[in-house]
Amino acid sequence: MPKVRVHNVTVSLDGFAAGPHQRLDEPFGDGIEGLHDWMIAAMRDRADGKSGIDVECIERSEENIGATIMGRNMFGPQRGPWQDESWKGWWGDNPPYHHDVFVHTHHVRPSLAMEGGTTFHFTDEPIDTVLARAFDAAAGQDVRIGGGSATVQQYLRAGLIDEMHLVVVPLLVGRGERLLDNVADGIDGYQVTELVSSATATHAHLVRR
Amino acid sequence: MPKVRVHNVTVSLDGFAAGPHQRLDEPFGDGIEGLHDWMIAAMRDRADGKSGIDVECIERSEENIGATIMGRNMFGPQRGPWQDESWKGWWGDNPPYHHDVFVHTHHVRPSLAMEGGTTFHFTDEPIDTVLARAFDAAAGQDVRIGGGSATVQQYLRAGLIDEMHLVVVPLLVGRGERLLDNVADGIDGYQVTELVSSATATHAHLVRR
Repeated sequence: MPKVRVHNVTVSLDGFAAGPHQRLDEPFGDGIEGLHDWMIAAMRDRADGKSGIDVECIERSEENIGATIMGRNMFGPQRGPWQDESWKGWWGDNPPYHHDVFVHTHHVRPSLAMEGGTTFHFTDEPIDTVLARAFDAAAGQDVRIGGGSATVQQYLRAGLIDEMHLVVVPLLVGRGERLLDNVADGIDGYQVTELVSSATATHAHLVRR
Repeated sequence: MPKVRVHNVTVSLDGFAAGPHQRLDEPFGDGIEGLHDWMIAAMRDRADGKSGIDVECIERSEENIGATIMGRNMFGPQRGPWQDESWKGWWGDNPPYHHDVFVHTHHVRPSLAMEGGTTFHFTDEPIDTVLARAFDAAAGQDVRIGGGSATVQQYLRAGLIDEMHLVVVPLLVGRGERLLDNVADGIDGYQVTELVSSATATHAHLVRR
């Protein structure tokens, strides 16, 4: 059976996935600089042909994924109705997905076909409807929930996530948006099956019991 | 200069130091069984003459400590006025402190001298007064803040902790008492200087900048 997977979701040591005041020039908000340094370094290492715990995690995150679901804040910094439709995501003309990407938003707009096979679909449908569409699009491969925290929480609360790779980095943030918050009993279904640290990050793998 | 240090404070992967419903037979509350398994195993390993990351952390936690401060919940499960004074802590007749231990409580009682050199003092004084008394008692050695979370938070908020050793274990709890919560700007003064994992726990060392 194809799975719903979360990967590379990164939190500070005190559990924050974003600081306060998320905006265009600071998409993860204030006080959280360096949150994704491990990932940037791992991608560079991989490009250089190096291996390691972090590189391995990046590679696992890309294996057998046929569609992605994300929240609107992960697609862009805008809030409320679209002022125009010129924004095409953070990733340039050729986003690194190369498959259908479903963006949860209250403000739908026409689908957006990009270079390299990525098509962004904007939807205000319920999560189980969106997930069914994503499984269709994935055609037998797994579906990845990209983020941000609110989207991951929504799928966690509904018990829809099969595997989650969570990364804890040695930063302290103190305020902002916690990843594992507002999940109520959703977290009860999961257990941590692996906990390993590289020099820069601790990787936890969670699976549904 | 002698320091204020926190050691071995253990949280779940989602940041909880205790579950809900703390009580006599479940002093850390519900849903958090196994939180301190790493520590029990490390103490057994040490007794067997084994070494390792966890054992090393336990050893560091005991070095050069001359006094301990803790919250009343760490001393016992009772809440409100003492019904009687027969409770002498969780640790039996010969507690593993062997120095003066200051217990923050709204309900003071006479000091309690135990076997092996441990004396419990009960105080409702402000934290800086208690800390000054602890430094006096420590006679040039460091002071350790034992816990629980509310006590650690209080000293963090006041910027009084110099070093903190935080342990993250592969458990998910979902609800209860978070360690790094209610610390406001207190956390801004700290940085993570080490992050290492054993097979059972991730150890983070925090110091004041």
